[in-house]
Amino acid sequence: MRKSAADRFRHLFNRSLILLRHRHHHHPFPSSSSLSPFSRSRFFSSTPFSMASDSPFPVTAQNINPKVLKCEYAVRGEVVTLAQNLQKDLQANPGSHPFDEILYCNIGNPQSLGQQPITFFREVLALCDHPAILDKSETQGLFSTDAIQRAWQIVDQIPGRATGAYSHSQGVKGLRDTIAAGIEERDGFPANPDDIFMTDGASPAVHNMMQLLIRSENDGILCPIPQYPLYSASIDLHGGFLVPYYLDEATGWGLEIPELKKQLEAAKSKGINVRALVVINPGNPTGQVLGEENQRDIVEFCKQEGLVLLADEVYQENVYVPEKKFHSFKKVSRSMGYGENDITLVSFQSVSKGYHGECGKRGGYMEVTGFSAEVREQIYKVASVNLCSNISGQILASLVMSPPKVNSLHL
Amino acid sequence: MRKSAADRFRHLFNRSLILLRHRHHHHPFPSSSSLSPFSRSRFFSSTPFSMASDSPFPVTAQNINPKVLKCEYAVRGEVVTLAQNLQKDLQANPGSHPFDEILYCNIGNPQSLGQQPITFFREVLALCDHPAILDKSETQGLFSTDAIQRAWQIVDQIPGRATGAYSHSQGVKGLRDTIAAGIEERDGFPANPDDIFMTDGASPAVHNMMQLLIRSENDGILCPIPQYPLYSASIDLHGGFLVPYYLDEATGWGLEIPELKKQLEAAKSKGINVRALVVINPGNPTGQVLGEENQRDIVEFCKQEGLVLLADEVYQENVYVPEKKFHSFKKVSRSMGYGENDITLVSFQSVSKGYHGECGKRGGYMEVTGFSAEVREQIYKVASVNLCSNISGQILASLVMSPPKVNSLHL
Repeated sequence: MRKSAADRFRHLFNRSLILLRHRHHHHPFPSSSSLSPFSRSRFFSSTPFSMASDSPFPVTAQNINPKVLKCEYAVRGEVVTLAQNLQKDLQANPGSHPFDEILYCNIGNPQSLGQQPITFFREVLALCDHPAILDKSETQGLFSTDAIQRAWQIVDQIPGRATGAYSHSQGVKGLRDTIAAGIEERDGFPANPDDIFMTDGASPAVHNMMQLLIRSENDGILCPIPQYPLYSASIDLHGGFLVPYYLDEATGWGLEIPELKKQLEAAKSKGINVRALVVINPGNPTGQVLGEENQRDIVEFCKQEGLVLLADEVYQENVYVPEKKFHSFKKVSRSMGYGENDITLVSFQSVSKGYHGECGKRGGYMEVTGFSAEVREQIYKVASVNLCSNISGQILASLVMSPPKVNSLHL
Repeated sequence: MRKSAADRFRHLFNRSLILLRHRHHHHPFPSSSSLSPFSRSRFFSSTPFSMASDSPFPVTAQNINPKVLKCEYAVRGEVVTLAQNLQKDLQANPGSHPFDEILYCNIGNPQSLGQQPITFFREVLALCDHPAILDKSETQGLFSTDAIQRAWQIVDQIPGRATGAYSHSQGVKGLRDTIAAGIEERDGFPANPDDIFMTDGASPAVHNMMQLLIRSENDGILCPIPQYPLYSASIDLHGGFLVPYYLDEATGWGLEIPELKKQLEAAKSKGINVRALVVINPGNPTGQVLGEENQRDIVEFCKQEGLVLLADEVYQENVYVPEKKFHSFKKVSRSMGYGENDITLVSFQSVSKGYHGECGKRGGYMEVTGFSAEVREQIYKVASVNLCSNISGQILASLVMSPPKVNSLHL
């Protein structure tokens, strides 16, 4: 069953499939799909919420950070808990349900559904994990020549070949060079390795930006609905205000500028200081690919309104319609003649998506452009508090942005 | 030079060597070691702080989150920037300074100073990165038998052997089982794998706890001075108040209960709601190892005052005085007869320290005990927003807590 189901989900499993409901006043989802009938059932192991003040614990749900309480994250929420409990049921009592397997499609996690990793990537990672074997003759028989070559190249980029050392807080300089070169090749416009901040997947990068921009609940972030719930969760955790804009299902989840303007004005009229626009392109969970003209309008809108454009571009390899093509917002804005001083743009990328789907490696980066030097220093400072992202993830991000090419092997 | 310097720093390089100055009113460092004479010199590439309101950028230092501005992180701060600029000087003009190499000892990063990784750990990591070679005959010639055995055991613990899939948000269950068993063996008391939250190094775990506990600037966290500056940075980023307690240099950086009480009372009298006590044991940067009786007093103090005990135990392997021994706070509290309902305790551990010093792998965990079920759910929810920590780091954390033993190889 796994095989055929994986087959059926081939074009889908790289995205979150569950459209999510939120209860917040600023999470304008319809409430018809309420999960509450299940929420106190035997499937849930959680203790009922206790208001008792005679708790033996100094920390209670009543005295923790209310932003944490408020945050919702349905990707691992009630539906997943239900599935996990059904799975336990099936293990304890086989045949107790009219199905005998649970396939988790709540999050894009292709390797958990049987997708195999790309051999070249894994060979390079293994060799960088254990560089001592790089020059052993047996290694030639076990690893491909191009992987050995690339691994040498990478360990030579790491100071002291120390793949177990903390790197520069933005990531190993040589790997950022590779990524910048990959961006240049993709876009046809220059990319600066000093603009790259490597992160443990894209999620911490999104948090970094929310942390930077949100000062209070009066700071708003324009987010698409439907969205990937990292955005609502991160906005809640940082105490900001989610300003929704609705994608238009009738036009293939189109992103309409009049809708953006309408929602921006509505938020402003409530005293919300809107600071940024999140665009997920290709869309998650909606899968649409924005056209270049639409993207130009979005860039123009952000420029005119003084908004930071937060471009979630982690699905850039996941375009399944031949007539659609991914264009990065960096490329679009540069092709309009807009440079560093014209548009503030952050592009998020991850090793977890694309054809590789290396979710467990937690590699990713953000390309940060159009910030003043003093704000960039603040971004660097916050990055440095966590020292650096994991080196395997950094290496993989460099591979994803610079995969082997036909005839690229130099023997 | 590198070798001998590395030698001289053998006992030191696993700790931060720079005692740090803070300018905040609640960071009570003496201000005599001011770095300001350098701060506008040619060594600093940063643009002078601009108050201009005619900035072309929508985001300025004046309108970002003030908590970010306030946060200081000297481990990667001005001294490091100065060193980096000196290094650039040396590269551009060899002989321009009365030294020809910079050794970075600002942070415990032993592999950057030439310490080699532990072969067993790296072999297992390489095999788990590329499990396709596990059953190839050439692998026997290149990897040790015990590493192959352990790698099989680990990939079998990962659902679908998918080392590239997101794991459970707390970490792979089988790896948490191994860690819990390692804690039990270390302490002689039970450990529950469901109490383990694996993280990308210890730093995100510390942030998670600060995020949970801090509601406003009226929430205080007792921190040792001198401290590891992650704590002050994290408290600032989460908008809390650092309540200092001073380690007593005269008694080998002793942690005195009367000092804790004095500082707690002083904070309370200012209206600060003190929520937790950070203890770094063994000390960072001070290196002291607390005695068991002292630890019992600390546990008693936290219990009586209703404080969460945040135990930074990442240096548990770094004890260099034969008559001193590390005791975990979990062991000490359990040996006093205190269980889940008596003391709220979080222990932080990392793969970056110890004899292995695998900083770049970003592996770590927190063991969370004495929280109510509803608060644990909140901790889990926040962990799930970032999906999971990196799998290589998770694997390494399991190895660190369960290293090979003499005669443990089953052929």
